[in-house]
Amino acid sequence: MGNPCYECPLPVAIPPEKPFLESVKLGIKETLFPDDPFRQFKNQPASRKFILGMQYFVPILEWAPRYTFELFKADLIAGITIASLAVPQGISYASLASLPPIIGLYSSFVPPLVYAMLGSSKDLAVGTVAVASLLISSMLGKEVNPNENAKLYVQLAFTATFFSGVFQAALGFLRLGFIVDFLSHATIVGFMGGAATVVCLQQLKGILGLVRFSHGTDLVSVMRSVFSQTHQWRWESGVLGCCFLFFLVLTRYVIGNLKKGLNPVSVSELAFGSPYLGTAIKTGIITGVIALAEGVAVGRSFAMFKNYHIDGNKEMIAFGMMNIAGSCTSCYLTTGPFSRTAVNFNAGCKTAGSNIVMAAAVMVTLLFLTPLFHYVPVVVLSSIIIAAMLGLIDYEAAIGLWKVDKCDFVVCMSAYIGVVFGSVETGLIIAVTISLLRMLLSVARPRTFLLGNIPNSMIFRSIDQYPVANNVPGVLILQIDTPIYFANANYLRERISRWIYEEEEKLKSTGGSSLQYVILDLSAVGSTDTSGISMLEEVKKNIDRRGLKLVLANPRSEVIKKLGKSKFQNHLGKKWIYLTVGEAVAACNFNLRASKSNNQVADELDAHNNV
Amino acid sequence: MGNPCYECPLPVAIPPEKPFLESVKLGIKETLFPDDPFRQFKNQPASRKFILGMQYFVPILEWAPRYTFELFKADLIAGITIASLAVPQGISYASLASLPPIIGLYSSFVPPLVYAMLGSSKDLAVGTVAVASLLISSMLGKEVNPNENAKLYVQLAFTATFFSGVFQAALGFLRLGFIVDFLSHATIVGFMGGAATVVCLQQLKGILGLVRFSHGTDLVSVMRSVFSQTHQWRWESGVLGCCFLFFLVLTRYVIGNLKKGLNPVSVSELAFGSPYLGTAIKTGIITGVIALAEGVAVGRSFAMFKNYHIDGNKEMIAFGMMNIAGSCTSCYLTTGPFSRTAVNFNAGCKTAGSNIVMAAAVMVTLLFLTPLFHYVPVVVLSSIIIAAMLGLIDYEAAIGLWKVDKCDFVVCMSAYIGVVFGSVETGLIIAVTISLLRMLLSVARPRTFLLGNIPNSMIFRSIDQYPVANNVPGVLILQIDTPIYFANANYLRERISRWIYEEEEKLKSTGGSSLQYVILDLSAVGSTDTSGISMLEEVKKNIDRRGLKLVLANPRSEVIKKLGKSKFQNHLGKKWIYLTVGEAVAACNFNLRASKSNNQVADELDAHNNV
Repeated sequence: MGNPCYECPLPVAIPPEKPFLESVKLGIKETLFPDDPFRQFKNQPASRKFILGMQYFVPILEWAPRYTFELFKADLIAGITIASLAVPQGISYASLASLPPIIGLYSSFVPPLVYAMLGSSKDLAVGTVAVASLLISSMLGKEVNPNENAKLYVQLAFTATFFSGVFQAALGFLRLGFIVDFLSHATIVGFMGGAATVVCLQQLKGILGLVRFSHGTDLVSVMRSVFSQTHQWRWESGVLGCCFLFFLVLTRYVIGNLKKGLNPVSVSELAFGSPYLGTAIKTGIITGVIALAEGVAVGRSFAMFKNYHIDGNKEMIAFGMMNIAGSCTSCYLTTGPFSRTAVNFNAGCKTAGSNIVMAAAVMVTLLFLTPLFHYVPVVVLSSIIIAAMLGLIDYEAAIGLWKVDKCDFVVCMSAYIGVVFGSVETGLIIAVTISLLRMLLSVARPRTFLLGNIPNSMIFRSIDQYPVANNVPGVLILQIDTPIYFANANYLRERISRWIYEEEEKLKSTGGSSLQYVILDLSAVGSTDTSGISMLEEVKKNIDRRGLKLVLANPRSEVIKKLGKSKFQNHLGKKWIYLTVGEAVAACNFNLRASKSNNQVADELDAHNNV
Repeated sequence: MGNPCYECPLPVAIPPEKPFLESVKLGIKETLFPDDPFRQFKNQPASRKFILGMQYFVPILEWAPRYTFELFKADLIAGITIASLAVPQGISYASLASLPPIIGLYSSFVPPLVYAMLGSSKDLAVGTVAVASLLISSMLGKEVNPNENAKLYVQLAFTATFFSGVFQAALGFLRLGFIVDFLSHATIVGFMGGAATVVCLQQLKGILGLVRFSHGTDLVSVMRSVFSQTHQWRWESGVLGCCFLFFLVLTRYVIGNLKKGLNPVSVSELAFGSPYLGTAIKTGIITGVIALAEGVAVGRSFAMFKNYHIDGNKEMIAFGMMNIAGSCTSCYLTTGPFSRTAVNFNAGCKTAGSNIVMAAAVMVTLLFLTPLFHYVPVVVLSSIIIAAMLGLIDYEAAIGLWKVDKCDFVVCMSAYIGVVFGSVETGLIIAVTISLLRMLLSVARPRTFLLGNIPNSMIFRSIDQYPVANNVPGVLILQIDTPIYFANANYLRERISRWIYEEEEKLKSTGGSSLQYVILDLSAVGSTDTSGISMLEEVKKNIDRRGLKLVLANPRSEVIKKLGKSKFQNHLGKKWIYLTVGEAVAACNFNLRASKSNNQVADELDAHNNV
């Protein structure tokens, strides 16, 4: 109990040197395989390894042999429930993507089958999503008019879906799933809200029964479009929209013909030779990332409810494969939509089998029931979309952001405003840029804290946070808050020299005992680079020149290793590096007392001599 | 002395809430004015403030009144010394920039005068630099051939210089000087070495006396250029170059006519209406940043030798003004070159007055001596450049980087290889990108450490670094290494759950006492955002579900504030947040003992009842 005395402090350990290749291997493992996905393969015979491997890459092989009638009953009910949601949603979202409605139905058939085989979530229901649909329409629509050149537009949508799939699968294979993490919670809240607002605005076309409409998605062009043709507003349609489904049968504006039959093969439709290939690739990558972010987040959330684990990178491969397969069978971009997954979960699904049931139900619809949808009015589709979208505008989350973190709120609002007044990409790019800049700024401008001693303890804490903490006379204790890198080394050097200057000025004005030691608490400095080491050397020179002494406390393994290699440790002297701030202060105090008593001896000698 | 007992721990303080505007103000001050440049203005009368303000913005007003004859003598010697360097260097670097040699001389006249008035360094000698000259020639030369369209090329060089100046001054005024910090030490070492190599390769033209030469700067095109015309190598020139200045008078290849007279005004030459304006702006910004990085770094280094302070932002304004003035008086880009400043320092300069002396000496040269330079052979210029460049290839620094930090070495080498095999911009962009990615990666993939108790103390340290540290039975102590942000929140959640899983597996296999508590040491988590708070909430849910208890140790002010606002603190319970890991462990141990003795009592009761 209690810290060891400062005369016999525990030395700061330099961790044992690892061979270069081993440390590179460990670094790669921690960076790319943080969840250690192959831990179950260890110490297994080869045959078992093969089976585990197959089950790892095709999870249906794991759960299908254990599938029971009980599980099937639960999945059947859940599957039929989500199929009943999938059909109107599929048609609505396809029209949002300016695609023929039947493609929305096709997209609820093949991709869920692929996901059921490869996906690791038990709750995720596969389908198209509104935001990605809107993005496709706004990005491809800029290049090709879906009304005038419908065939090319559909081909480009398939091509974009293909590249989404390739990109998603590649991210998964390369274990680069963390790219999705750069869409922060705040960005997604703002972006979804903005996209939902834009989607709702787009529905004014259907609700008001307008024929011509803006191709832009921003508030200004939609409003101009709406109010420039007030004489064309169809009031019967508006009333119908406001009363939603009540007057379903009274109207005659229908969605058009739906062909009977299953998905046609569309490999030949992939427009790799088109002059718009670049646009298709760009659309594919952007929509792919957004769809991935939603799907992975949804899968993770529900996995957490039921306490099982999802491998994000494996999910990405499943999403990628499902979209590649989809693009070859007349489907457009699919992912795991929140609404459909929530319904699936509430309906009591047990395995990915519910996706197979849904696919079967959609197949039956495609084979026999499509003519019935001939008479669904456009205004009903608009109403369905608006109802789904309103749930995405999560103003409570935005209020929470404001309360907890003003900067996150700014990110969220800029995503919202960017989407509503600019375009979907603008909002996204602004929000991601602000988030990254904020993170870079926090690294480039780390905070330094003045530490004080908490009374009756050997604990040292920031005086800002703990006003009870006391200064130690003659000693300035500073804590650095982040890793020291090239981006903040200059700043820290200037800030530390300002701390010293200010402390000396203060002591001068109050007449306190003069400054003798500067202790840098490096507990929070997880790593550093050569610029950081040079910075410490310059700080040492500067402190030496002022006649003070630099003392380091608790350098971490990365830092002490580099200090040792750069010879800084020898310049400083090992005895000036301590394990804790407490020990460093005790050593300083001991030296201060020693020099004081020496001075006293000298004074007494002087006095003696003068006598 | 010793830690307080765990029954009466000091509570973790939430720092007093600051008004929103005040905290924004403080944040801006710490970000943009870390050195508090206006501290001397505090508590001064208005007239004194005005004088201080003038002296702040025009430092010559501060030192000129105190200028003595002693100082002048020192500056005179230093000034004449650097002028003797400035003339051949100016001519050489101008030819490197594909500009008429006389412009190199002009550039050593006006800019030093401007710097002497506005600059805050006492040692910096102003002049043109090789790397920026090469960049100008390679970037502008791509658009306009300096031989075929010399007038336009010169105009574009002036325009680029103008924009460099505007950009540099703007950075200073907006206090955005930290942008320069993103050029890390490793980047600069590699970049300078690469540029020096390229410059030396370019001199093969002069050394071998070739007439036609590659416009590319990369190794491949230069080598192809050299070896495709072996029959045109002028051996006499080669021998001359190899023996440097020995055969100076034997050769007849001269630099051409130099006009007598001072700098002509060139405001009308600024080509704002040119179709190449974009190129000029791009060249200006890139060369401006590089020149700035060199100038500021050089100024800082020598200020540190003499122990005075340089304000980086003020220096930028001075550089900017000097280049704006230069671009209007037939000068091209200038900064504070390392070589010339080192000579100035060694010659004993005392103030920026040595720049005025140098300018005066160059003026005399321009007025009377230029005809003498008529007979300086090209090969001599090439030799001068090569001699200066060889010093910039700092292979020892590169070896040092390899020893201390492998990643910095990779940055350095990629800058070098990028410059030598690609182009100057390519090298720069690659190196900055790798540096930034490395920094982002360190934030996106923070390290987590398992802590153990150092024997006979209340200190807890990483078991990796201190193998003597012991596990606490039933308690898992994890330390998180960096601020928790959106970019690492998902990773940390997965990594923490893997730590728990692995610890439980280990305990199961060794038959140790089962895990009861997970302590997260947040000492190194300087700040967080809403994603970080959600992550902690999810970790808590996950830990609860496994029947364990989450305990937090030492949350810092930013973190505890946000925990409080987000209600997470209430979910967790204040009694599970401790000031130190030691206290948290003591509390866990107390509860473990309490529950064990309860179990014992229960066992005894059972035994009793059974009897």
